[in-house]
Amino acid sequence: MNITNKPSIVTLITDFGLQDEYVGVLKGVILGHAPEARIVDISHIIPPQSISAASRLLSRSYRYFPAYTVHLVVVDPGVGSDRSILAIAADCQYFVGPDNGVFTSILNNASSLAVHRVNTACVLQKDISSTFHGRDIMAPVAGRLAVGLNISKIGPRIALEQCLLLEGVGCTRLADTLQGQVVHIDVFGNLCTNIHRKDVDDFAAGHEIAIEVTKDLIAPLHKTYISQSNGMVLALYDSHDYLEVAITQGNAAQQLRLAVGAQIVISRR
Amino acid sequence: MNITNKPSIVTLITDFGLQDEYVGVLKGVILGHAPEARIVDISHIIPPQSISAASRLLSRSYRYFPAYTVHLVVVDPGVGSDRSILAIAADCQYFVGPDNGVFTSILNNASSLAVHRVNTACVLQKDISSTFHGRDIMAPVAGRLAVGLNISKIGPRIALEQCLLLEGVGCTRLADTLQGQVVHIDVFGNLCTNIHRKDVDDFAAGHEIAIEVTKDLIAPLHKTYISQSNGMVLALYDSHDYLEVAITQGNAAQQLRLAVGAQIVISRR
Amino acid sequence: MNITNKPSIVTLITDFGLQDEYVGVLKGVILGHAPEARIVDISHIIPPQSISAASRLLSRSYRYFPAYTVHLVVVDPGVGSDRSILAIAADCQYFVGPDNGVFTSILNNASSLAVHRVNTACVLQKDISSTFHGRDIMAPVAGRLAVGLNISKIGPRIALEQCLLLEGVGCTRLADTLQGQVVHIDVFGNLCTNIHRKDVDDFAAGHEIAIEVTKDLIAPLHKTYISQSNGMVLALYDSHDYLEVAITQGNAAQQLRLAVGAQIVISRR
Repeated sequence: MNITNKPSIVTLITDFGLQDEYVGVLKGVILGHAPEARIVDISHIIPPQSISAASRLLSRSYRYFPAYTVHLVVVDPGVGSDRSILAIAADCQYFVGPDNGVFTSILNNASSLAVHRVNTACVLQKDISSTFHGRDIMAPVAGRLAVGLNISKIGPRIALEQCLLLEGVGCTRLADTLQGQVVHIDVFGNLCTNIHRKDVDDFAAGHEIAIEVTKDLIAPLHKTYISQSNGMVLALYDSHDYLEVAITQGNAAQQLRLAVGAQIVISRR
Repeated sequence: MNITNKPSIVTLITDFGLQDEYVGVLKGVILGHAPEARIVDISHIIPPQSISAASRLLSRSYRYFPAYTVHLVVVDPGVGSDRSILAIAADCQYFVGPDNGVFTSILNNASSLAVHRVNTACVLQKDISSTFHGRDIMAPVAGRLAVGLNISKIGPRIALEQCLLLEGVGCTRLADTLQGQVVHIDVFGNLCTNIHRKDVDDFAAGHEIAIEVTKDLIAPLHKTYISQSNGMVLALYDSHDYLEVAITQGNAAQQLRLAVGAQIVISRR
Repeated sequence: MNITNKPSIVTLITDFGLQDEYVGVLKGVILGHAPEARIVDISHIIPPQSISAASRLLSRSYRYFPAYTVHLVVVDPGVGSDRSILAIAADCQYFVGPDNGVFTSILNNASSLAVHRVNTACVLQKDISSTFHGRDIMAPVAGRLAVGLNISKIGPRIALEQCLLLEGVGCTRLADTLQGQVVHIDVFGNLCTNIHRKDVDDFAAGHEIAIEVTKDLIAPLHKTYISQSNGMVLALYDSHDYLEVAITQGNAAQQLRLAVGAQIVISRR
């Protein structure tokens, strides 16, 4: 992994919001270590301390970045406790953040993987606060990786079993149905679910299916948002092949009054 | 147009908001094609699918960027339909986005212009989703233009007449008045109108004018926000020479209870 | 101060919000002058025209940036008046913005300092609007400093006494108590005060102290957010050594119904 001549990219996912100085300070520290880095915000307005939301964003974004991009995730409700900080090399990308489950899908799915526990002595920050490890530990580690420091210099390699992994939150089969949940509502009001196209195909096994959004509402499956007339409900697979419920030119969450957690039930006809 | 040695800039206008991964993913794809690009957010929080709001932002911002900047606009309610995607060279700047009217003011006013319809075969993205052409087509095109690919390689040149142009939304003369509307409310609560200084000058023809904001309220015309005492209503020309109604050190929209669409009537005294 | 070979960074603090084109336009102008600059947003969503909020953000962020970073602050309620625009070199960093008190803590605390009043003739922008000096004057000045223009070329050096300084807003001793205020509520709902660790140590003089948040609520002092059980109130020093009141895994501002301005009273036991 010789990255000396590559322009380095660092992406950021935090729950810091945009009103405080926290995000800017992270960037200042990163640029102090990696003056040539390109820093890209994925999002800073995920719900405070929501590890699952951060994890979902990361798993939906990292693949679109060039090799050797460093992905820094600072959603860290355990700051000040003895939770570890991880530096991970997986599938030619780097990941830095707290060991709280936020990297579960990376750790479970990577085809090549090396997990290191950050040794703060390696980071060389003189004062480490007890309240802002994003600034004092994780940003320096991300900056160093961005300028090509070998990840083995960050701290000892550890086994996957030593990392915190979150339980899967996929859809489940119940009797003759496939049951999933709304896990996210995007800016357009689309209801994003945890039901993957593959799960549906396995379940359907060639049969027609019915997608029940509420007791009285079956959403027809289409390929694009504009396959229906304006104002009509439809289901479609999003650009990551997860099932989504939308209203053409409308806001499904508001108009159907559904929120994160709402049940979506699929049955065979 | 040899841009080999120029650092390339890509600006973004989308309705993606800041909570989802969509904007970050666009940037990842652009940097994959143009690792040295500077990416600048114009705004991502325009009203969902508002082509007119995106068009207004673009027309007020693009001139301030260096030559050969690429302006990518992803406000795309017709994704998945057969609407074209355009790549435009105009006045030494590039524009990429759907053919839905968002480039109307560029197309109408450019002194030099070449419009190309993107041929997706040129983009070389293996899988093109039916729901996220911003990621799969437009971002790669923007990235290629940013590294100097000749626009003629993006797809065939088409005539201006083949593009969708939105109707003008300027102010109008009605009897002895000039009538305009509030088209935007900015972060300070200033009421931004579609009435240009030139329209007012032509209408006034040397006479004094009265600017009627509501039935009982005439706003005096001043040069700066601080020409009035705090709390007083005034009108002034904004930095693009459009008429704006403001309250010194206050929030005109909230205090006058006016919204987008409110009528502003100018008469000669 | 030879910065020729250093990559230049420009940070931005404004009250422009993220919905309008204002921030993007500032960046376009900066990149026109400094094509290689890295531009970092500190925040654009401070309360409109709040000089004190901008000043607080600046003083909490600038130290984390590499030497020769240019910090541009555009919170400018007096645009169009005869207020000066300042360009400041302080502690190997540059600062550009209106002379309205926003740089008070820089001017009061820098160990090396040179303050210059911007001479708009030096800026060479042909048309200067009366409503957007951020775009027409300050961004060009920031861009020029970022490419290494000597600050003495920006305008005449002036004495510190000629600058507007805001009154201190620290905590005060009253009878046998130390009294401070909540000056900011961060994205997690933490109550950030103007009480510095040093003030508390001086006041305590070795005694135990009691931190009174409301009449009936004494907050125990801890080192980390997770020192208490979930839902419990605690006080701690933030990463800048200011006292903060928080609720472990909760939102102190909402749960205690406290806002900016709330009194915090410390007494010796």
